[in-house]
Amino acid sequence: MKYGIAIFPSKKVQDEANSYRKRYDPHYALIPPHITMKEAFDADESEIESKIIPELKKIARNTDPFSFGVFKVSSFSPVTNTIYLKVEPSDEIFALNEKLHSGEMPGEKDFAFVPHITIAQKLSDEEFSDVFGSLTMLKFDLHDQVDRFQLLYQLENGAWSVYETFRLGKE
Amino acid sequence: MKYGIAIFPSKKVQDEANSYRKRYDPHYALIPPHITMKEAFDADESEIESKIIPELKKIARNTDPFSFGVFKVSSFSPVTNTIYLKVEPSDEIFALNEKLHSGEMPGEKDFAFVPHITIAQKLSDEEFSDVFGSLTMLKFDLHDQVDRFQLLYQLENGAWSVYETFRLGKE
Repeated sequence: MKYGIAIFPSKKVQDEANSYRKRYDPHYALIPPHITMKEAFDADESEIESKIIPELKKIARNTDPFSFGVFKVSSFSPVTNTIYLKVEPSDEIFALNEKLHSGEMPGEKDFAFVPHITIAQKLSDEEFSDVFGSLTMLKFDLHDQVDRFQLLYQLENGAWSVYETFRLGKE
Repeated sequence: MKYGIAIFPSKKVQDEANSYRKRYDPHYALIPPHITMKEAFDADESEIESKIIPELKKIARNTDPFSFGVFKVSSFSPVTNTIYLKVEPSDEIFALNEKLHSGEMPGEKDFAFVPHITIAQKLSDEEFSDVFGSLTMLKFDLHDQVDRFQLLYQLENGAWSVYETFRLGKE
């Protein structure tokens, strides 16, 4: 089964992201707005229960809640045409990402971690230029608090279902 | 904010339900297949944190995991044209539903609890006759285990985002 780990921001930030995703993100219906903390990885349910979940509990317990800001959009162009709300980098979010890729946790990172909330993807080059051109003019002033992350698994239709929630700093 | 409580069945059952929801349920994109254990209720975040979550933890701790079967579809017709996978009634699921509507938990039940996984809704009368006529011929033999429930909140677009997971029988 395919699993992944994400942070879901507050309703306020999710609603803001959805106002763009609705038009520009074909994954709009598959998962609410999120910060991917660990890309999809394969595991079986027994491994999840016996190894991954205990490890995630330990990581959560040893991570304090932290805050982040979103002030602008950015893009992965020219690698992909993905446009995202840029999550201001902080030591805390990088440290959490690191923990989710060390020790008992499976999988190597394929690329450097860029904390972000995707709002547009799979646009044609022309659409991308138009949309990025207008979104990049916008100023945001979103401040949010992270106090949990979630382990999800993917259904056959591509949608993600939450398996378990891990609260930071406590059990 | 609007909150609700649901059980998400295993991937196997969710995939099966989605094969019908995709065609017949306009809520397909708003939430994965689920058993609604408590209808949408209003609460503010401080009440959720100070009152509801501690209560849900207590309820989860005092409820043992249980199993359920799905053998056929049924419908709420003539009240609504909703078609669902009928979750075989069990003492355990009724007891959990009862706990989620007693004590500190807000809200009265508007109608008797019928455990179900919706696969079609908001069909025209004609569509309903066609679809129900063919689905009602199907036999299912799904067996599933419930070991958690989830507290969700609703986004502005109508989609539901998981706030917290409660494992039955421990924490």
